[in-house]
Amino acid sequence: MNSSRLLTSLATTNELAELFSDQCILVAFLQFESALARAQAKLGMIPQSAADAIGRAAVPEGFDVQALARDARISASIAIPLVKALTARVAAGDQSAASFVHWGSTSQDAVDTAMSLLLSRAKAIFERDDAHLSKSLRALSDRHAGTIMLARTILQPALPTTFGYKVAGWYAGVKRSWRRLAPSFGEAVTLQFGGAAGTLAAYGQQGTALATALGKELNLPVASAPWHTQRDRVAALVAHCGIYTGAHGKIARDITLLMQQEVSEVAEAGSGSSAMPNKRNPAGCVLAIAAATRMPGLVATCLSAMVQEHERAAGAWQAEWPVVADALQTTGSALAGVITALDGLTVYPERMRANIEATQGVIFAEKVRMLVQAKLGRQAAERLLAEAAREARETARPFRQILGARPEIVRLLTAEQLDNLDRLEDYLGAAEEFRKKLLED
Amino acid sequence: MNSSRLLTSLATTNELAELFSDQCILVAFLQFESALARAQAKLGMIPQSAADAIGRAAVPEGFDVQALARDARISASIAIPLVKALTARVAAGDQSAASFVHWGSTSQDAVDTAMSLLLSRAKAIFERDDAHLSKSLRALSDRHAGTIMLARTILQPALPTTFGYKVAGWYAGVKRSWRRLAPSFGEAVTLQFGGAAGTLAAYGQQGTALATALGKELNLPVASAPWHTQRDRVAALVAHCGIYTGAHGKIARDITLLMQQEVSEVAEAGSGSSAMPNKRNPAGCVLAIAAATRMPGLVATCLSAMVQEHERAAGAWQAEWPVVADALQTTGSALAGVITALDGLTVYPERMRANIEATQGVIFAEKVRMLVQAKLGRQAAERLLAEAAREARETARPFRQILGARPEIVRLLTAEQLDNLDRLEDYLGAAEEFRKKLLED
Amino acid sequence: MNSSRLLTSLATTNELAELFSDQCILVAFLQFESALARAQAKLGMIPQSAADAIGRAAVPEGFDVQALARDARISASIAIPLVKALTARVAAGDQSAASFVHWGSTSQDAVDTAMSLLLSRAKAIFERDDAHLSKSLRALSDRHAGTIMLARTILQPALPTTFGYKVAGWYAGVKRSWRRLAPSFGEAVTLQFGGAAGTLAAYGQQGTALATALGKELNLPVASAPWHTQRDRVAALVAHCGIYTGAHGKIARDITLLMQQEVSEVAEAGSGSSAMPNKRNPAGCVLAIAAATRMPGLVATCLSAMVQEHERAAGAWQAEWPVVADALQTTGSALAGVITALDGLTVYPERMRANIEATQGVIFAEKVRMLVQAKLGRQAAERLLAEAAREARETARPFRQILGARPEIVRLLTAEQLDNLDRLEDYLGAAEEFRKKLLED
Amino acid sequence: MNSSRLLTSLATTNELAELFSDQCILVAFLQFESALARAQAKLGMIPQSAADAIGRAAVPEGFDVQALARDARISASIAIPLVKALTARVAAGDQSAASFVHWGSTSQDAVDTAMSLLLSRAKAIFERDDAHLSKSLRALSDRHAGTIMLARTILQPALPTTFGYKVAGWYAGVKRSWRRLAPSFGEAVTLQFGGAAGTLAAYGQQGTALATALGKELNLPVASAPWHTQRDRVAALVAHCGIYTGAHGKIARDITLLMQQEVSEVAEAGSGSSAMPNKRNPAGCVLAIAAATRMPGLVATCLSAMVQEHERAAGAWQAEWPVVADALQTTGSALAGVITALDGLTVYPERMRANIEATQGVIFAEKVRMLVQAKLGRQAAERLLAEAAREARETARPFRQILGARPEIVRLLTAEQLDNLDRLEDYLGAAEEFRKKLLED
Repeated sequence: MNSSRLLTSLATTNELAELFSDQCILVAFLQFESALARAQAKLGMIPQSAADAIGRAAVPEGFDVQALARDARISASIAIPLVKALTARVAAGDQSAASFVHWGSTSQDAVDTAMSLLLSRAKAIFERDDAHLSKSLRALSDRHAGTIMLARTILQPALPTTFGYKVAGWYAGVKRSWRRLAPSFGEAVTLQFGGAAGTLAAYGQQGTALATALGKELNLPVASAPWHTQRDRVAALVAHCGIYTGAHGKIARDITLLMQQEVSEVAEAGSGSSAMPNKRNPAGCVLAIAAATRMPGLVATCLSAMVQEHERAAGAWQAEWPVVADALQTTGSALAGVITALDGLTVYPERMRANIEATQGVIFAEKVRMLVQAKLGRQAAERLLAEAAREARETARPFRQILGARPEIVRLLTAEQLDNLDRLEDYLGAAEEFRKKLLED
Repeated sequence: MNSSRLLTSLATTNELAELFSDQCILVAFLQFESALARAQAKLGMIPQSAADAIGRAAVPEGFDVQALARDARISASIAIPLVKALTARVAAGDQSAASFVHWGSTSQDAVDTAMSLLLSRAKAIFERDDAHLSKSLRALSDRHAGTIMLARTILQPALPTTFGYKVAGWYAGVKRSWRRLAPSFGEAVTLQFGGAAGTLAAYGQQGTALATALGKELNLPVASAPWHTQRDRVAALVAHCGIYTGAHGKIARDITLLMQQEVSEVAEAGSGSSAMPNKRNPAGCVLAIAAATRMPGLVATCLSAMVQEHERAAGAWQAEWPVVADALQTTGSALAGVITALDGLTVYPERMRANIEATQGVIFAEKVRMLVQAKLGRQAAERLLAEAAREARETARPFRQILGARPEIVRLLTAEQLDNLDRLEDYLGAAEEFRKKLLED
Repeated sequence: MNSSRLLTSLATTNELAELFSDQCILVAFLQFESALARAQAKLGMIPQSAADAIGRAAVPEGFDVQALARDARISASIAIPLVKALTARVAAGDQSAASFVHWGSTSQDAVDTAMSLLLSRAKAIFERDDAHLSKSLRALSDRHAGTIMLARTILQPALPTTFGYKVAGWYAGVKRSWRRLAPSFGEAVTLQFGGAAGTLAAYGQQGTALATALGKELNLPVASAPWHTQRDRVAALVAHCGIYTGAHGKIARDITLLMQQEVSEVAEAGSGSSAMPNKRNPAGCVLAIAAATRMPGLVATCLSAMVQEHERAAGAWQAEWPVVADALQTTGSALAGVITALDGLTVYPERMRANIEATQGVIFAEKVRMLVQAKLGRQAAERLLAEAAREARETARPFRQILGARPEIVRLLTAEQLDNLDRLEDYLGAAEEFRKKLLED
Repeated sequence: MNSSRLLTSLATTNELAELFSDQCILVAFLQFESALARAQAKLGMIPQSAADAIGRAAVPEGFDVQALARDARISASIAIPLVKALTARVAAGDQSAASFVHWGSTSQDAVDTAMSLLLSRAKAIFERDDAHLSKSLRALSDRHAGTIMLARTILQPALPTTFGYKVAGWYAGVKRSWRRLAPSFGEAVTLQFGGAAGTLAAYGQQGTALATALGKELNLPVASAPWHTQRDRVAALVAHCGIYTGAHGKIARDITLLMQQEVSEVAEAGSGSSAMPNKRNPAGCVLAIAAATRMPGLVATCLSAMVQEHERAAGAWQAEWPVVADALQTTGSALAGVITALDGLTVYPERMRANIEATQGVIFAEKVRMLVQAKLGRQAAERLLAEAAREARETARPFRQILGARPEIVRLLTAEQLDNLDRLEDYLGAAEEFRKKLLED
């Protein structure tokens, strides 16, 4: 047993761990090799019987993964021991077919294409989960269109806003990021097929016809040309995973902050601690923040790895595979974590109100400022309001009341203005308008 | 004097250094403040005379940049001392107008919008340079459609290819990356206008009308809603800069390798050394590789900075500004470096031939393999060809000749096949077809 | 004017911005060149009169920084235009001396040594500030050795601890990180002197004697050998800056969290907002968190830049200079930010108590568990305590009281145990012992 | 089957993959739990029979790794399902003992300590391999103390140097980096034991005694205090891994460049290609460069993860585990790769000579410059030498001969100076002196 599921348990989901498992990689690799043989047989490049023999041998059972992994280091290529092992199996069934395994192809064709096949499956998982998340966020935003809470800037109370608008911001951040990510999959999920040096010379005049046929067999689009050392598509996919995960990290950070006991405005269904029976931890958010902590480094690596020498890099390409797999799993983990958090989220509107009230209304200082500054002068207004805010905090009396005792203010505001000074509903500005626009986008 | 042009001399261009200079930042910031006043006057929110006074004061001359920078640390915001200094100037001319400076706005509106204004100017520079580079690369590729050279994988000779195809790969990598980058500018160059907490509450019912008017004044699009803590657009812009720069780094790495004296297939016009009069250094490529070395870290920072708390982050947002400016300048430096390299590039086709010949033709081992493997069997073919290749290298005799002395080979190949074994033109596969497709994309 | 102090205002301090300014870089560079001439004159390698002439010309006034920066791109070296400009000045005074400028040296010697000179000055700043911070943290920890507060895990209430212990953890993290960083300066602040290719061949038999003499002139240690492309010392310095900054980021994050209005356990002296007169922002912490957000990318770049080709890299070395300067300034900014935060910190012990009380004592669930689990059985104990905790929260009654109504508990605990269940002082474990040890280290 | 050995085959070694496998992690975790029970029994905190029962159950066989990994996500902690599973096993054997599993401990104690146990084993592997590498490098340097080759700056010929000196630079870079890394293990390999919130309150007065006893059981040093959210030791370890790997990347990059066919100065034993029987790839170096490409991102993540909230982070801590394991494996992969490359390295001194000769001696331009510049004047000397170098290259005639035809030169140099102009042995400067010093360090 040499797996590392415990180590990565918080860094992937079961589904994605399975998708990038040895089993699935083996299957993807063997799909490439057998599809290659089938396409070549159809074009008359190798005997049909050879393609059949290769197809029969290309089943994942019985490969010695440990030995393959060990031998991969000898040639700095996992494809070489894999082709060798497959060839031995083919030879066992049909000696003459063995010559046609991996016929005219190269390691990178097999490895990059296998990765494309896996990416295409990952996309389906992401699509499903993103749709679920989108729906949750929209519903949550709609449900709380009128739920008033504190907006907080630099972790200090700012003004009132609505939870619905806040959630709409989360929604839109994820949505925009998904709209960039989804087409990145489209770009990156592409057949790699260039032969030894990107010219397909080994196939004579049939190179591009074979590429087309192979793409069809594997249900993969064929790019204009092989992309051995042009890795922008891979880098873009991973970068967009990074941005998408960042949007999830923002949500998760907000929720963990709102879930602090002293704030208590929302709560994940959460989970306990191994020590403290009283604890309820924001487990889903923790997974998402962990993911957002890890993605920047993974993206940076893919960008560094773009500087690839000539027609195959000496190191940069070989660095990429585990990083891409890690990035996809990390992204999926963030998505699953946020879904968990949101699906079990409880919202406490009354606590949101209470937290606003605890500010004594000093958050309306800006509002008053707009009403009096032109007449009082900027500095006088700022000084007066800062003093009044301090007094409100220190005496725990309403800001409105403090201001009502200041002749400079009383003189400038109508009684109604003063009475309604801290009506939350009156000071939400365009929150609802923005909320709707964000959901419409 | 407190500038740092010497330090960043290899990390930016003159033009971009100027664009992100104190002078230009000041101008952009003042543009925001005076446009805000104009828009507010138009909507009747402040007196026209105040807007006029603000407009008159909002000129960059005479601001004390050192003092502003020092004071920015006090509030962790450059906007606060800037507004204060502007207010003092306005007050000097028109005391009553001073109250209306930055009326109802917030630091982040000013800072993010100023950055958008600069980004929009950077885009124009990039567009111009990218068009130049594209043209150079296309022309170079066309000129060398038939120039045969070694393809090299893992820094070892692989097969013949053409320089034109290689350059087409460079071209396509840059082109695709530009096509992702250009719309990123479109997304990121956006008015930021949300007031203290993203609701524009200070403006009552006029918030979104003011946003529209302000966008018009500044010639900036207005997003669906303020994006205070949703930084995906910024992150995407910087990430695409990273990918675009990576595509340049690949070109530059290839050129430096081809320009090694022992290879000598191309040469930058280059420049000398401070010690050695004989040297000719690939200076343009060095700048591009340096840029590609620096971008991954900058992108990673922008991704990390996406996890922003609530309605304004405590640290992550404040980390972003210098990084974005640095990333843009680094990207422009890469672009300018590659342009320098290509505009002065000399290509040595005869040396490309000579380097191929120096392989003794062993690079055709794959070709022979395709011809004999089915009959000889895989292992026998591999062994025979590896031995023949070694013999060719060790005896410095042509591979063709070595093979011609092997009865197993002679038996399987026609005399013509043997004679033409190492004809380069016959073993270019789909190079030209791929080249054309890449240029068409 | 082409400086960028506004852009970097939150990313450096005035002092460090000055240290890495064009002026100081110019001075450092000229120090290298004049010290080189002096040392060479002493060893009889060049005429004393030439050294004198070089010394006279090597003053920073009058160099055209913009032109130097622009010309640096031509050769991808700032040293080349600098040497040229210096030579022209020397020639203006003493034509014959002009030949001896930069005599036998190379760009990298000048650039790396200039950086060493600046680093050595930065170290002095860091030492002063670190000593100040250490002292503040120790004093704060001592002052609050008995100030009880909530320990919080995963942003949820855990158990009681002391603020003094928490601060001791901050102290020790900074202290350990400083103890790694300080010797890194020692390693990195080193003369670079290898001539064109690291052999000092231009100086014949006098190479190492000259290196020794030059080190003495510049008051810089001389390494065993030139370190042109062995950048581990630089990378280690920057990495240790990253770790040191990370330790500051942790402090700053904690303070921003404790300063949230809903928590209000500490407050920075702080500063206002451009919009809201009521606001008091944790400005010092914001600067430190911004720094901690930026350092990982800078460290990553220095690590990437370690892979340098042969005897001078084509790109990786050239990437390094601005990154090192940026990393040092960012570190200094974090340090200054945390000092600001701590020097103006108010601590609210009564609020710490109140926040504990607001938990209703459920944070003692672990304590009760240790008393009853062996007898009740693990699952029963966990279930009972989780239920009681929930009941305490929902009914806002003390946990102790809830438990006192449970016969299973009453049976197992003495009346005294039950009465004292939530005495904070009894459940601090080794907090004070750990606190003292951390301060002693 | 859910392992991912194929994916990471080039990113780890068999030995390290095994060390961080589920099996070993399980063992390490169970070691913690059974050692905790033993230590508690010794101190009379739990019955000896419970400790025995726990010890009997704490064997890795039969745990369902997939289920554990899946359940870990529920609580964002692998320790919680592990403790639960262990408890069930203990209960099956001795119901009363089940209450004492993980008695008073917390998830982080188990996870961090398990990681320490694994790190300590990794250190032993690194020590063995580093000693091997050091020895190889020293021997290689000694063997080639007199092997003259081109020094190359910015990938262009610079001056002569020796291969022995070059290798000594490699050696010293690795050695210094190891001397930083080794004590980092010492720091990071430390018991984590703080209980729920770092105070060990659950153990009353016995907390620190238990920590001491537990450290003894596990053969792990005990830090001054728990280090839950002070992660500088972990970050320092990973950063030093990054620097150490960077030093390997530099070696590997140099070797791949020297092994280019056009250079052919050294060759790895290497390995073949899946397509081209003629190929010999620098497989060991590729693994090391891939590792050096990946480390910066991993280090950056650990630095980002230092900003941990309060007494346990919500995300940053949880991000760390797989990154640390990945970093260690990547480092080990680099080390193993460089060892492979060096153990099979062939050096071609005659080709080194030939490559120098191919420069026509223009690399001595600096030497001539030192002889004539004072008399000819700087600009005249530079111009003359640059012209002569160009002529030598273009006419393929020796630089010495070109210069011998220039009266300005003939006038200034003795016949002997001219004759010996390009004697390599005369222009090695302090290469051998530096080489020896580097090996002595």
